[in-house]
Amino acid sequence: MKHFTAPSDVPSVPELVQKALDVKRNPRRYAQLGNNKTLGLFFFNPSLRTRLSTQKAAQNLGMSVMMMNFNKEGWQLETEAGVIMDGGKAEHVKEAAAVVGQYCDVIGLRTFAKLENAAEDYKETFIQQFKQHAGVPIISLESEIRHPLQSLTDLLTIEDYRIRKNHTQKPKVVLTWAPHVKALPQAVPNSFVEWTKHMDYDLTITHPQGAELSTEFTEGVNIEYDQNKALQEADFVYVKNWSSFANYGKVIEAPDWTITAEKMALTNQAYLMHCLPVRRNLVIADEVLDGSQSIVIEQAGNRETAAQAILQEILLHLNAGESLSDLSESLII
Amino acid sequence: MKHFTAPSDVPSVPELVQKALDVKRNPRRYAQLGNNKTLGLFFFNPSLRTRLSTQKAAQNLGMSVMMMNFNKEGWQLETEAGVIMDGGKAEHVKEAAAVVGQYCDVIGLRTFAKLENAAEDYKETFIQQFKQHAGVPIISLESEIRHPLQSLTDLLTIEDYRIRKNHTQKPKVVLTWAPHVKALPQAVPNSFVEWTKHMDYDLTITHPQGAELSTEFTEGVNIEYDQNKALQEADFVYVKNWSSFANYGKVIEAPDWTITAEKMALTNQAYLMHCLPVRRNLVIADEVLDGSQSIVIEQAGNRETAAQAILQEILLHLNAGESLSDLSESLII
Amino acid sequence: MKHFTAPSDVPSVPELVQKALDVKRNPRRYAQLGNNKTLGLFFFNPSLRTRLSTQKAAQNLGMSVMMMNFNKEGWQLETEAGVIMDGGKAEHVKEAAAVVGQYCDVIGLRTFAKLENAAEDYKETFIQQFKQHAGVPIISLESEIRHPLQSLTDLLTIEDYRIRKNHTQKPKVVLTWAPHVKALPQAVPNSFVEWTKHMDYDLTITHPQGAELSTEFTEGVNIEYDQNKALQEADFVYVKNWSSFANYGKVIEAPDWTITAEKMALTNQAYLMHCLPVRRNLVIADEVLDGSQSIVIEQAGNRETAAQAILQEILLHLNAGESLSDLSESLII
Repeated sequence: MKHFTAPSDVPSVPELVQKALDVKRNPRRYAQLGNNKTLGLFFFNPSLRTRLSTQKAAQNLGMSVMMMNFNKEGWQLETEAGVIMDGGKAEHVKEAAAVVGQYCDVIGLRTFAKLENAAEDYKETFIQQFKQHAGVPIISLESEIRHPLQSLTDLLTIEDYRIRKNHTQKPKVVLTWAPHVKALPQAVPNSFVEWTKHMDYDLTITHPQGAELSTEFTEGVNIEYDQNKALQEADFVYVKNWSSFANYGKVIEAPDWTITAEKMALTNQAYLMHCLPVRRNLVIADEVLDGSQSIVIEQAGNRETAAQAILQEILLHLNAGESLSDLSESLII
Repeated sequence: MKHFTAPSDVPSVPELVQKALDVKRNPRRYAQLGNNKTLGLFFFNPSLRTRLSTQKAAQNLGMSVMMMNFNKEGWQLETEAGVIMDGGKAEHVKEAAAVVGQYCDVIGLRTFAKLENAAEDYKETFIQQFKQHAGVPIISLESEIRHPLQSLTDLLTIEDYRIRKNHTQKPKVVLTWAPHVKALPQAVPNSFVEWTKHMDYDLTITHPQGAELSTEFTEGVNIEYDQNKALQEADFVYVKNWSSFANYGKVIEAPDWTITAEKMALTNQAYLMHCLPVRRNLVIADEVLDGSQSIVIEQAGNRETAAQAILQEILLHLNAGESLSDLSESLII
Repeated sequence: MKHFTAPSDVPSVPELVQKALDVKRNPRRYAQLGNNKTLGLFFFNPSLRTRLSTQKAAQNLGMSVMMMNFNKEGWQLETEAGVIMDGGKAEHVKEAAAVVGQYCDVIGLRTFAKLENAAEDYKETFIQQFKQHAGVPIISLESEIRHPLQSLTDLLTIEDYRIRKNHTQKPKVVLTWAPHVKALPQAVPNSFVEWTKHMDYDLTITHPQGAELSTEFTEGVNIEYDQNKALQEADFVYVKNWSSFANYGKVIEAPDWTITAEKMALTNQAYLMHCLPVRRNLVIADEVLDGSQSIVIEQAGNRETAAQAILQEILLHLNAGESLSDLSESLII
């Protein structure tokens, strides 16, 4: 695995989930693998779980971490080609990526959707430009439209629970929209659907009319507009708000969609998942979040495991490349 | 010692001060103790000494440090139970504490008083909620009403000077209020009094009428409203401004209380202490700060020692717990 | 070498450049030299290359790094002596420097010019006060008027190219002003001239009328107001905007000075250099930046090498001092 920005970067999603489970069972196996390697973590937006879990994962592998809040500690970057840069942006992403790529062995990058123009956001410009110009592996710490570290965590969490609970039949997994007061990106649900498609799950998405995700992600997936019907017999309920894709970036009002104990009672004693941060009693009721079926905290803890699995794969790939070039050099001699 | 937020967390204050002196004499004794352990330092307010001295202390013990400015790099946390979170706060402290507790072995936390409502501030809500939900030891890096790392530093500094100067008799220690233009929290003087009570010192607090601290902290302590009288025969003068407790958070105007050479002449050649930052010629005159009896710089240097002593105690406690559980596991086998 | 703030701190500039070339050839030679040593990096202004390259260089030497954005994570510092500090500044640089000097073995400091008052900026107040009060070696990460880490990088880059391209004759080096929309400091061009004087180069500065640098730096250097004439037969073209020194801090308008392919055609196939960040098509045209003679990315990569060379020299100096005092102690015994 060279980059980690979407399932298309990964040879096999189920195998990667298996590797992440191995990391959870044996976290210190590769404690020296990252020695003398540096991970740069560059944030264009706020972060708590991603920042801390990825830093911790890198340290578990012996890597050094360099962290930077780009817009606040540095300056804004230009992404358009050919423009005369006489406005507010001090540096072009071409130079910024190429320069930091010289100081880092691996780069993690977070850039949220602006939610003003779908076509712009859905290009994932920063990630693509860093892939093109940085010359080192790029890890998405959440792009405008994808959050793959979260999705790997989600699959790891589901598989871990299935093993621990001896749950061998095909699970019914429901991704349900829930209310929010702010316009949130579609990155988490997009990615959850994109990754879950690679697993042998019975996946249903439920949301109000008008909350359809981009068909780029949902094509072929079962959509049920009746939340109560969707929740029936669910084994895992993944709760998340997102803003409208069709009416791009607009807040959707549907206050009845809050996840309550009553709704969870429709499920097959489903485990409750959420990527956090979660607004209590707006997205999910206290009674559910604090209930015995809520696994949101352990899910967040698994962020460290997922990040470590990804860094391990990338470091093993880097080292294999180095060994290969060492080999070819010695063959020349 | 599990947590470090107040003297009540500490088995014996004099013994802890002794341990801190040992760290000062032999700082590299436990250079590997913190290997593979992570300290999270979370700041809700600015910091210089606390940030750098605690980070340095952790590194001296081989710990990894993860640092975060919560409000600026993350988001605001809700602390009330049962509310519908449809306002400006994106996450509840219950989740935030439980999540970061999974990435960190020890957590340090700084939250200043808002100085709007005494009852609210004096609850130390963040510290208490983190203690309850994080599942790992919590170190106060200054709460709304206490600054225990500063107070341990202060006692360490006094004891160190007493030893070096062969000062065996019971010392007279004077905590004197001094002027300031901004409303400052009561955390440093509260804590100084709370900790000094555990030592065999002759303690006097002096301040203008209206600057009384909460009796929760000062009960049983000698208060003298005449600053000149209080300073007589003092061996250590601890200078600090604080805002009113009775007229909560209001600036008290008493420009004559600035510490000058003339006032210090009343003392028994007392050593001058201040927690810093200090505003020159408002709180303390240049002539005193730059004089031979000022020990404020060495006092600030002792912050590293005090933080290291606390981290050592917590790590020894954690390791003892691990050994115990290792033992019980091996006994089961 | 104790401090690193200007060529006057350096015994021999050509020898230092040679040492930096050695670091580039053998970067892991001193991988343990900085063990148990801490570098504090304190930023009063934004930074990307300097922040990351210096942090990386320190880690290459085994040093710990403590980083802080002073104004944002801490507070503003007073630099005037004798003032009553009843305004917006919470701490005097005398205390701040002395305190952080106790937590750090080496300190790096960045403070930009305010561009309001030349006399003020040209004092380099922060650097000088930290040199005086911190008690440890000070590295300039760019002061109001100098950027020595950049200049050492620039000379290293030129020498590296001369060696690799077998370019043995005395090179013609041209520092050319270029347009910009914002008022930028004179630190980079001042330092470039100050350092280049120590090398056996044929140096020409070219800029519009009114863009003269301070004669403190340019005395004895060839100035040519005709950019086309200056560029003729150049081997290295160093491009940089700066604001007016005479009309202090004012933006100079001269849109024709943008570096284009046509202008580069006048040179002896010169290598193009710039310290970055660079505004494309305002300072330098895309065709030149993306052309085969542009070495700006490798130049930025050399920042890591230059910083590592400086830290090595300072650590070797520190260790020599320690050995010496170890020796004298053992002699006393």
